[in-house]
Amino acid sequence: MSTTRRWLKLTVAYDGTNYAGWQFQPSEPTVQATLAEAWCSITGEQPTLTASGRTDAGVHALGQVVGLVTNSELPAERLLQGLNAKLPDDVMVRAVETAPDGFHATHDALKKLYRYQIHNSRVRPLFDRRYRWHVPHELDVASMQAAAVHLVGRHDFACFETTGSERSSTVRTLTKVEVGQGGAAGEQIDIEVEGDGFLYNMVRGIVGTLVEVGRGAREPNWVAEVLAARDRRVAGPNAPAHGLVLVWVEYAE
Amino acid sequence: MSTTRRWLKLTVAYDGTNYAGWQFQPSEPTVQATLAEAWCSITGEQPTLTASGRTDAGVHALGQVVGLVTNSELPAERLLQGLNAKLPDDVMVRAVETAPDGFHATHDALKKLYRYQIHNSRVRPLFDRRYRWHVPHELDVASMQAAAVHLVGRHDFACFETTGSERSSTVRTLTKVEVGQGGAAGEQIDIEVEGDGFLYNMVRGIVGTLVEVGRGAREPNWVAEVLAARDRRVAGPNAPAHGLVLVWVEYAE
Repeated sequence: MSTTRRWLKLTVAYDGTNYAGWQFQPSEPTVQATLAEAWCSITGEQPTLTASGRTDAGVHALGQVVGLVTNSELPAERLLQGLNAKLPDDVMVRAVETAPDGFHATHDALKKLYRYQIHNSRVRPLFDRRYRWHVPHELDVASMQAAAVHLVGRHDFACFETTGSERSSTVRTLTKVEVGQGGAAGEQIDIEVEGDGFLYNMVRGIVGTLVEVGRGAREPNWVAEVLAARDRRVAGPNAPAHGLVLVWVEYAE
Repeated sequence: MSTTRRWLKLTVAYDGTNYAGWQFQPSEPTVQATLAEAWCSITGEQPTLTASGRTDAGVHALGQVVGLVTNSELPAERLLQGLNAKLPDDVMVRAVETAPDGFHATHDALKKLYRYQIHNSRVRPLFDRRYRWHVPHELDVASMQAAAVHLVGRHDFACFETTGSERSSTVRTLTKVEVGQGGAAGEQIDIEVEGDGFLYNMVRGIVGTLVEVGRGAREPNWVAEVLAARDRRVAGPNAPAHGLVLVWVEYAE
């Protein structure tokens, strides 16, 4: 008698507005608990779900990756449809795939892309209000782009780490920090940050720092000083959670 | 002693999700009551607010126009800022302007544009779920465009009027019925309908009818028969409210 133990990789999207983040917490709604409950109702299994990383309360995902081990023999397509039928309308599974034996969504992640969404207008956003940070003072995108250049590459990003985490190294490599502008009146400013790993609150610290430059409080070159200082107190404030979206996570084939 | 009685024109945007429509109803949240309350808290006046037209429960607006008469001497800019400070985050005043004496937002409207937003994908929408109708079966946009052509012009639109209204004539002129496609995978189908007036549920009836054609249940020419029948039972079902947006209303200068 053999069981069909399989490793699976789920690609999950969620609107984080109504969740206390990814990670399970007693008596708080979390994405992990919501997904585990849906899984259980389809397969009868209490799964151990491992995400590429925790997302904080209010942070959204288009392509969070979640790994699990299952004995269920349901085909991937059935699992996908079943989960989406059970999940609430603010959580969605976009793909269910077989993963290599021993797959670990956190440790095996090679690269991630985060997008931070700003609504830059005197007038507050309406339909986007859950997904964009409202910055009412005018931002200079060219300055923000000039500042962002300093962040690309392998650096010690200690200046952007909110204290309380226990990582041994604060060195990470960012392969892209791009500031783009869109919307009918240029009011949408999106900051995309791609890297091999992220410290706690790192993207929100980067965005808060770039906005200091964008509103003219600092020169673009200030960002080089911030990096060199390796001190969280030197950088700008963290941008709020609700503008942040985890777009995708890359793994080795 | 003279009072400064003025007519004002407010351009108002709202997310209709949490409202029982524009029109005041006892013990139900409505956009009209919400806006009246904000006005009262700024000026002390209990205003009579007249909109270009009622929007149903769940229908959104980017540019609803609301008229009122006021004795307040506050400048337009102060009213705009004051109202937006008082309004909840799902209602917003985009402009406050002086209107001609006797301005009536309903009767003086010359033209309106509605946009109906569809999410056409097997997978349900996530971030757009409050603003797009999820149509899971594939829609043929070219057929819908061919069908839409029949609707442009001056016609008796009785076939698209939900019963219960008391209008004397069901003849209206549509100057545009456009079916567009967007989104990363073409999943966003937007139907724009511009006209000099609309019967009750007319746009939702048009959209439900075009979707019958798009999914292949009917040929594009069927729409000409529907129009000619002048019978609501012949047309397709009404599309749901939450995909509908009142984009703008035009008045004579």
